[in-house]
Amino acid sequence: MDTVVLLGLIAGAVTSLGFIPQFIRGYRTKELKDISYFMPAILAVGMTLWLLYGVLKEALPIIVANAFGIGCCLVLLVMKKMYSPRS
Amino acid sequence: MDTVVLLGLIAGAVTSLGFIPQFIRGYRTKELKDISYFMPAILAVGMTLWLLYGVLKEALPIIVANAFGIGCCLVLLVMKKMYSPRS
Repeated sequence: MDTVVLLGLIAGAVTSLGFIPQFIRGYRTKELKDISYFMPAILAVGMTLWLLYGVLKEALPIIVANAFGIGCCLVLLVMKKMYSPRS
Repeated sequence: MDTVVLLGLIAGAVTSLGFIPQFIRGYRTKELKDISYFMPAILAVGMTLWLLYGVLKEALPIIVANAFGIGCCLVLLVMKKMYSPRS
């Protein structure tokens, strides 16, 4: 595999990993009131555009990372709605 | 300008914008305890790898978006440290 593609896949894995401690923290404390709804919502929209960019560029790491990232943003939105809906 | 590059720049602008409501929220409430330190810290590391990927691919939108994103993660870390250092 192309080294640059591999670097992109590693980069995508790391940025995707970044959401995990936030999920764990939210799940443990059952509170996400300090997180703005707009952050994961706007990120999901932006990542959808990145996904389209990745498809047009035929860049696998960008496609994979942003597809996963959109899922993470949606999970965070659902957790926020479950734990701290009115803040 | 290439349409795909323009799409990438718009995508980068939107994902960058995603941080702004979080900054505003944190600044208003002076609390960021529900945010895990690890999220912005790991994201900053991943974005540094994305930045390197963008440089190697000579992809301007990836370079610009991730350079700005790294800055946003660092601002979030500093705000967390200021407002909710022990949580």
